[in-house]
Amino acid sequence: MAFELNAFLLEDIKRLIHHEEDAQLVTLFEDVHFADVAEILDEVNWDEAVYLVRLLDSEKTSEALMELDDDVRERLLESLTPKEIAEEIEEMDTDDAVDAIAELDEDIQQAVIEYIEDEEHAADIQEMLQYDEDSAGGLMAKELIKVKETWTVAGCVREMRRQAEEVTRVHSIYVVTKENVLIGRLSLKDLLTSDAKTKISEIYIPKVDAVNVNDQGEDVAKLMQKYDLEAIPVVDDEKKLLGRITIDDIVDFIKEEAEKDYQMAAGISQDVEADDSILQLTRARLPWLFLGLLGGIGAATIMGGFEDILEDYALLFFYTPLIAAMAGNVGVQSSAIIVQGLANDDVKGSIGNRLLKEMALAALNGLLLGLALFVFTALWYRGEPDSLNTALAISISLFAVIIMAGIIGTFIPLFLHKRGIDPAIATGPFITTSNDIFGILIYFWIAKLILFT
Amino acid sequence: MAFELNAFLLEDIKRLIHHEEDAQLVTLFEDVHFADVAEILDEVNWDEAVYLVRLLDSEKTSEALMELDDDVRERLLESLTPKEIAEEIEEMDTDDAVDAIAELDEDIQQAVIEYIEDEEHAADIQEMLQYDEDSAGGLMAKELIKVKETWTVAGCVREMRRQAEEVTRVHSIYVVTKENVLIGRLSLKDLLTSDAKTKISEIYIPKVDAVNVNDQGEDVAKLMQKYDLEAIPVVDDEKKLLGRITIDDIVDFIKEEAEKDYQMAAGISQDVEADDSILQLTRARLPWLFLGLLGGIGAATIMGGFEDILEDYALLFFYTPLIAAMAGNVGVQSSAIIVQGLANDDVKGSIGNRLLKEMALAALNGLLLGLALFVFTALWYRGEPDSLNTALAISISLFAVIIMAGIIGTFIPLFLHKRGIDPAIATGPFITTSNDIFGILIYFWIAKLILFT
Repeated sequence: MAFELNAFLLEDIKRLIHHEEDAQLVTLFEDVHFADVAEILDEVNWDEAVYLVRLLDSEKTSEALMELDDDVRERLLESLTPKEIAEEIEEMDTDDAVDAIAELDEDIQQAVIEYIEDEEHAADIQEMLQYDEDSAGGLMAKELIKVKETWTVAGCVREMRRQAEEVTRVHSIYVVTKENVLIGRLSLKDLLTSDAKTKISEIYIPKVDAVNVNDQGEDVAKLMQKYDLEAIPVVDDEKKLLGRITIDDIVDFIKEEAEKDYQMAAGISQDVEADDSILQLTRARLPWLFLGLLGGIGAATIMGGFEDILEDYALLFFYTPLIAAMAGNVGVQSSAIIVQGLANDDVKGSIGNRLLKEMALAALNGLLLGLALFVFTALWYRGEPDSLNTALAISISLFAVIIMAGIIGTFIPLFLHKRGIDPAIATGPFITTSNDIFGILIYFWIAKLILFT
Repeated sequence: MAFELNAFLLEDIKRLIHHEEDAQLVTLFEDVHFADVAEILDEVNWDEAVYLVRLLDSEKTSEALMELDDDVRERLLESLTPKEIAEEIEEMDTDDAVDAIAELDEDIQQAVIEYIEDEEHAADIQEMLQYDEDSAGGLMAKELIKVKETWTVAGCVREMRRQAEEVTRVHSIYVVTKENVLIGRLSLKDLLTSDAKTKISEIYIPKVDAVNVNDQGEDVAKLMQKYDLEAIPVVDDEKKLLGRITIDDIVDFIKEEAEKDYQMAAGISQDVEADDSILQLTRARLPWLFLGLLGGIGAATIMGGFEDILEDYALLFFYTPLIAAMAGNVGVQSSAIIVQGLANDDVKGSIGNRLLKEMALAALNGLLLGLALFVFTALWYRGEPDSLNTALAISISLFAVIIMAGIIGTFIPLFLHKRGIDPAIATGPFITTSNDIFGILIYFWIAKLILFT
């Protein structure tokens, strides 16, 4: 793990590129891991990156390309000719190849596929391009080790050696019928310990989990996590073996999902990164801010409606940011815990029970916070006219607002989930804004009730 | 994947337990996957769960126990005798065994370890208990396949068969010296294709990545993701092979980290779940709400300081929730993107550049939002005295507040990160609250400047 990209090394590389010292560059990159090559491609400028991809062995650069961000890879590939792209694609596993190709324009896609020399590889890619990116078909790779039930152990080992050339990591050995129908798997242990003449049909394990090619990636991820699987075969409706999904693809998937939820909670609606352009970032952030603006205007309009009590009870108006903030915070807390629970499938029981629990929780929090606020305001404003009443009104309203915020924060994601909508959109600005408006309305309404009756 | 836990099956199981129909229960559970056993243990009541753990084969229940939430497993184990716990532990891989034992009281721990029959297993657990839970040592398992460089291929295969009994999944074959120093790895392919008399020293790959036993789990997770590793060996300071970490342990780790960040952003400070008790949930949520309360009181106090302009410019006060909400939203967006970038190691460049970019971004957003607000307020309140000036004051202040919020939201996580503090605590209520206060202060200050000069 000694590799560390530093400014000196980077300068060196840039200098060598500038002087077109190809031989030295190739030697320099010989021992560099592809993940580190990716880091270097990310750091040098555009022309330098294209130069390196052209120069270095596709075996190395193809893997490095897959480590790059989608948009960086896309731009890099677009700087290459279809023939050059095909050379990179040739070295990739089918799942990576499809991910890389799918980003290109359709006419370039076809040109690239025609340049791929390995016809089977090209056909696999062609087939896989039709699957939805987030489905099992979009996540799977065609590379796997499969044996026929009719083979012997000796034949099996021979065939495995051949197949192993193409497969980076042997996870499982799948057993199929002559018609390629998946019927089981073979343990390496059994293979190692069986006599060379034993038939596979005698030693294979007839139990094997598989997913359908059209299953959602999210469900595959859950399944693999639940059953601690490192690889799972993908079959079509006739149980024919099409490919396999490995845990490393799922790791990326899980991370992407978690990041998407996190960004949604923070009010960022598209998949953006800190290094994206200002325009991309604005597009992802502005809509949510605009929603917040509308909410604020709504709150201001409500407050305008209570202008008649402004003169006597100015204090009420000073506490509106507090009310809005608390309504927002409680709402986000409640919704976040529901969204996370839904994602992990551990929200049990009925919506009714869930709401009751959240109400009890909010009541407890509201009581403690309302009490604290009452003590503070009663002491701080003592001596001012009607201060005790105002303190009471503010605190009781806070209590009511917290309960309401908890209920809304719990109900909305549950409701969206029932409707088949991703509940994660309910966290963040959406819940904050609606709770702001409702909160301030309830606050003034209750306060007025207390102060004027 | 046919298993689906339904109410009928659950009723059946409960009835069988009630009537102590042990033979029927054992038959029923024969084909149930341990992950599904865990689901059942989660659904039945306490005594029933203990009954099942006692009844069923430890080979199955030990794995099911590891699928349960930490606190559920802890309570279940505490209902068993040390001897019964030892039977479960006996069946677990060392990493799971240590996780399970570490939760128990120290005297029970020792009693359990003494009951473990496999002395090597007991010694391994004893050794591993000393490592920090989140370090490489805490994540690793002792089960692995290793061969000595002096062996032949034939001897190696023989020895591997023996070791494979204990190892669930063969990821890599590690090559060590006589002194157990890790010197390389062996590819399965090379092993399959080499002559039986070949010495391992002739065919092993002398390049192998490893982590130190004291490395942080987070760093191991990053490394394994970056280099797409499915397993990584763990060595001590003398490079002696101690164990290995597999990707499935890292998947759980990554998920936990992502969930922690998400909860922190939502203002939930402890690891809680939707099904935890109201008291646990309150403890996790109340401190952040209290922080929000203090922020609100701060905002109210600031507004009190501007009471002299209340009569003439009541409108200003109506827009404080909007200002606070926008300051909060922008702050959360900025900080979330930085926190995520830091977690993925792709925040590049200096803090200065980062702040400049965020300022430009905030200025663009602020300009658009300020303009929208100006158009609205100017039209809505037209005819009222001094309305145009007030609209101008509110909008310009909003613009300034958004820029400030963006800067604070960017700076705080970067600053915390430089100081070695987890920047995730800067998202959520922390940033919202500080931005609320600063926002309202700047708002009134600028508005007053515009209206009274």
